[in-house]
Amino acid sequence: MRRTVPLKPGERVDDLMAGGLAIIQHPDVFCFSMDAVLLARFVTLPPRGRIVDLCTGNGIIPLLLTTRTEAEIIGVEIQERLCDMARRSVALNGLEARVSILCRDLRTCTEVLPVGVFDVVTANPPYLPRDGADLSANPHQAAARHELFCTLEDVVRVASRLVKSGGRVAFVYRPARLVELLALMRQHRVEPKRIRFVHPYADRPANLVLVEGIRDGGVELRVLPPLVVYRAEGTYTDEVLRIYNGGTA
Amino acid sequence: MRRTVPLKPGERVDDLMAGGLAIIQHPDVFCFSMDAVLLARFVTLPPRGRIVDLCTGNGIIPLLLTTRTEAEIIGVEIQERLCDMARRSVALNGLEARVSILCRDLRTCTEVLPVGVFDVVTANPPYLPRDGADLSANPHQAAARHELFCTLEDVVRVASRLVKSGGRVAFVYRPARLVELLALMRQHRVEPKRIRFVHPYADRPANLVLVEGIRDGGVELRVLPPLVVYRAEGTYTDEVLRIYNGGTA
Repeated sequence: MRRTVPLKPGERVDDLMAGGLAIIQHPDVFCFSMDAVLLARFVTLPPRGRIVDLCTGNGIIPLLLTTRTEAEIIGVEIQERLCDMARRSVALNGLEARVSILCRDLRTCTEVLPVGVFDVVTANPPYLPRDGADLSANPHQAAARHELFCTLEDVVRVASRLVKSGGRVAFVYRPARLVELLALMRQHRVEPKRIRFVHPYADRPANLVLVEGIRDGGVELRVLPPLVVYRAEGTYTDEVLRIYNGGTA
Repeated sequence: MRRTVPLKPGERVDDLMAGGLAIIQHPDVFCFSMDAVLLARFVTLPPRGRIVDLCTGNGIIPLLLTTRTEAEIIGVEIQERLCDMARRSVALNGLEARVSILCRDLRTCTEVLPVGVFDVVTANPPYLPRDGADLSANPHQAAARHELFCTLEDVVRVASRLVKSGGRVAFVYRPARLVELLALMRQHRVEPKRIRFVHPYADRPANLVLVEGIRDGGVELRVLPPLVVYRAEGTYTDEVLRIYNGGTA
């Protein structure tokens, strides 16, 4: 049941096509992408427990996770402007009892969050290195795309500290840097266990990768069937339509 | 043009359906599998130069590579029985001038092969750990499947030593141990650059992975389109038929 919350100039409310959820977006500040939806549908979730989402942006992943679990979810975001949007989206959906937003540099979030107790940690980290970021054009978008406030290693290290032994950590990332991601996960004792590549078309290279690891898990990786987005120009595959409508990836 | 070579009891000559090639096989000693064919069709080859194939078995990969390059190829194999089969297959196809078989423990092959000069190194290493190997049943098959004579790290380390800077190293392996393979490649300065997963069906997990790295290469991995083997029970996909008939993977 949606409630009314104040919107700021340029903001809009988008329907999430899942569980009646809606989210506040702003084309110049933050709009979620398919990456976040896929991660929220890919990660293995317990029916209840505690979850952290790092680099949460406007809260897209915590909101979507509420349709799959009764767990308490904390989204961590460094940018005040995005935290404000995320909190109003939480209020819009009446989810304050289950989702909270922590406005903080993730590198110091273990000062206020308990270590080694979370069942699941998710993150959609910036994909690009710090070099090349154009801060003057749009600082919000630059921070979402480039490693301005945290490196990939920061994200993996903090996720590894927050999650409990046997708990799961899941990322969405670019295949180009997959070797680095897998190496960092293992280095921080999050053994990669499930991986799924996302291809725009069946005969094209992957442009996204979903990876889930288990803290202190044994060595055995499953490479899941490829997820193909389009069957033809502008036409989604049946599987992507199913995922967009709330199915798991 | 095939020549006549002596066969030992139980051996047979199989047609390779490529360039008129044939190979000597023995059901209880060594028969090549799809893995080797895919690797031979996946690896990037120079028109000429020098190539080493580690764990060459009955020489399947060197033989198949001759249809794609004029390079000189050395197959390294530790088992005398397999070296003998491989050498007779080389003679059968009249390829003695281009393919030679070195019967030696690969861990010491840099004592007789030059270091850092090969354009390409390929390997289809044993996939399973030493534990669990049943040596009494069939020692040849046990050695092909289990790490009896070399570990994965031995193979990666030796490949890295043999190949020249900028040269390519390609493996076929099991996805379950992919994280270890990628980590070892990077550790030995062979940066993974191309990867392709092989799925028995489009909606099933991968059961093989092809990986190619470049010695001293920069970080940027391409995850190629998935290679699907069957479109239905017993029916190969068009792509696999094309590869079996000599096309690249």
